Amino acid sequence: MKAMLAQCLRYENGSLAILDQSALPQAEIWLVCDSPETMVGFIRGLKIRGAPAIGVAAALALAAYAERTASLTAIREAAKMLRDARPTAVNLMHAIDRLLQQLPQGVDALVHAAEELFDEDVALSNGMAHYGVPLIEDGDGILTHCNTGALVSAGHGTALGVIRAAHEQGKRLHVYVDETRPLLQGGRLTAWELERLGIPYTLICDNMAASLMRLEKIQKVFVGADRIAANGDFANKIGTYSVAVLAHHHRIPFYPVAPRTTVDRACPDGAYIPIEERQADEVRGVIGYFGKVTWSPEQSPVYNPAFDVTPVELVTGLVLDTGYYSRQQLQEGILPTVCHQ
Amino acid sequence: MKAMLAQCLRYENGSLAILDQSALPQAEIWLVCDSPETMVGFIRGLKIRGAPAIGVAAALALAAYAERTASLTAIREAAKMLRDARPTAVNLMHAIDRLLQQLPQGVDALVHAAEELFDEDVALSNGMAHYGVPLIEDGDGILTHCNTGALVSAGHGTALGVIRAAHEQGKRLHVYVDETRPLLQGGRLTAWELERLGIPYTLICDNMAASLMRLEKIQKVFVGADRIAANGDFANKIGTYSVAVLAHHHRIPFYPVAPRTTVDRACPDGAYIPIEERQADEVRGVIGYFGKVTWSPEQSPVYNPAFDVTPVELVTGLVLDTGYYSRQQLQEGILPTVCHQ
Repeated sequence: MKAMLAQCLRYENGSLAILDQSALPQAEIWLVCDSPETMVGFIRGLKIRGAPAIGVAAALALAAYAERTASLTAIREAAKMLRDARPTAVNLMHAIDRLLQQLPQGVDALVHAAEELFDEDVALSNGMAHYGVPLIEDGDGILTHCNTGALVSAGHGTALGVIRAAHEQGKRLHVYVDETRPLLQGGRLTAWELERLGIPYTLICDNMAASLMRLEKIQKVFVGADRIAANGDFANKIGTYSVAVLAHHHRIPFYPVAPRTTVDRACPDGAYIPIEERQADEVRGVIGYFGKVTWSPEQSPVYNPAFDVTPVELVTGLVLDTGYYSRQQLQEGILPTVCHQ
Repeated sequence: MKAMLAQCLRYENGSLAILDQSALPQAEIWLVCDSPETMVGFIRGLKIRGAPAIGVAAALALAAYAERTASLTAIREAAKMLRDARPTAVNLMHAIDRLLQQLPQGVDALVHAAEELFDEDVALSNGMAHYGVPLIEDGDGILTHCNTGALVSAGHGTALGVIRAAHEQGKRLHVYVDETRPLLQGGRLTAWELERLGIPYTLICDNMAASLMRLEKIQKVFVGADRIAANGDFANKIGTYSVAVLAHHHRIPFYPVAPRTTVDRACPDGAYIPIEERQADEVRGVIGYFGKVTWSPEQSPVYNPAFDVTPVELVTGLVLDTGYYSRQQLQEGILPTVCHQ
């Protein structure tokens, strides 16, 4: 397999490694992936995260494994294991299925499919930036949620990739970053990325966004998407729906940004998207490379969904790598026709 | 001064002490207050918090000090220091002003005013419960924000006092508790109070409330208020405005609950309420008796307002100890006439 280098993962000299996002920003640690099981652990442990990155990482793990094993059965079993690592991420399923389709032609074909997937993912970021940047005006305050930059894809990412491209084109902007409880991807990762990129930003707690909207500090909202239903409803990190409602109330444009691979044409609407629930301890306190503290009573009953669903009614428009689609176009059912996978 | 005992503070045998809320729920520590300066430190350090409790605690600290000193100038200086301990809490100013008005009649009159203030605060809780309980129906899911129970007043509190009274009257209910970043008064204190009271509850991150509303798990929202303007706009813990917008969008009744002492008739509307900003480190991580961790880049720029303002348009009705006032009544200007202080 050829060398492939991105901010969140790299494959060279036969070795696959990922940047441990659970350790950022306190430490930059590269973890070697020597088996599909290891990658499943990385994905489940959120050491690599973000829908596109998970798909690419799982594909590279499968391809690297396929190059080392003679057993088609073992490859298929590894594929199944990787495919099931996270239930909500449709990119992961698509990536693995695409590689498996090549398996009858041999391992070389499967490896080539993985290489193509990586290159395409870079191109997807560029496509999203191309269609997203015109939505940003000079001087905009932009709210974003979770982390959607170069850590979530082989390229520059989804929502944060658009923001980065606008900055690189000379548009002055200020990014407001939701910390994104409970796992703090905004406070840890988006803040880290923006700092490295020199883009002005302000970190806030999730419950402060509404106040900033009322104070007219926010002109646009850009978020990622983990799965988009055929009608334009989409699942994304918990708290995205809350931001969508707040933006709607304040008449602030709200744009999800995603690669076409995030669209699940088999899913008619948001009600069909399964929502993963995670451990109670994540809400009772915080756990991370930075330490662990628990502040609530030790046995507090907790609700901890990893995602929520935003209905298309709250979407101003969707940025895909293939184009920009207004709410009206989404509601007219344009998605199943624009996404060819 | 007579003995006065509440969950959050107690005065007996000449000694004033407060329950250190910054240590809850990990430890129950009573701190002795031996001077006005000490109480200012307790208030600023959020060891005692909640608008009514701060007013009572400052009044008892001033009265205890007045009993020990012969200098009227020293009493007036102590009063000024206590009055300025937190800029947004109007109860604090009212409490101190009320005691100072008695000073010309002598220290005994000032002490008697402090005793009256304590007894009245207990009665205020009872009044709010009386008018708030009828708003709760058997089987309701109730969202609350921050902490508004027996820790914030000499009685059973404001919003949580209403919920507690409904529970004690046999209404079945389930409370959803916003953890309330950055200082986690919900995750630490409200969860602790509900657990002690045996009221079923679920702890959530602030950004999960919208999802629960969409899932129809929440039928009512009850919150406290730190200052209410004459037109019904009110300031409360940061995140309250966000909850109000979400409730409005989902057509869920939204009720602030407060004693009449929270109404600032001199303040025409929410735009006149000053909003205190707090330290950046509170948003970069968490700090408390439970420990300290920082997860963001160390110098992340931060926005950290302690409060936000909710406009009367988003209020279904206001529960005071004097009665229940609908949004229409508030908008017609009923508040200045119902509050006699």
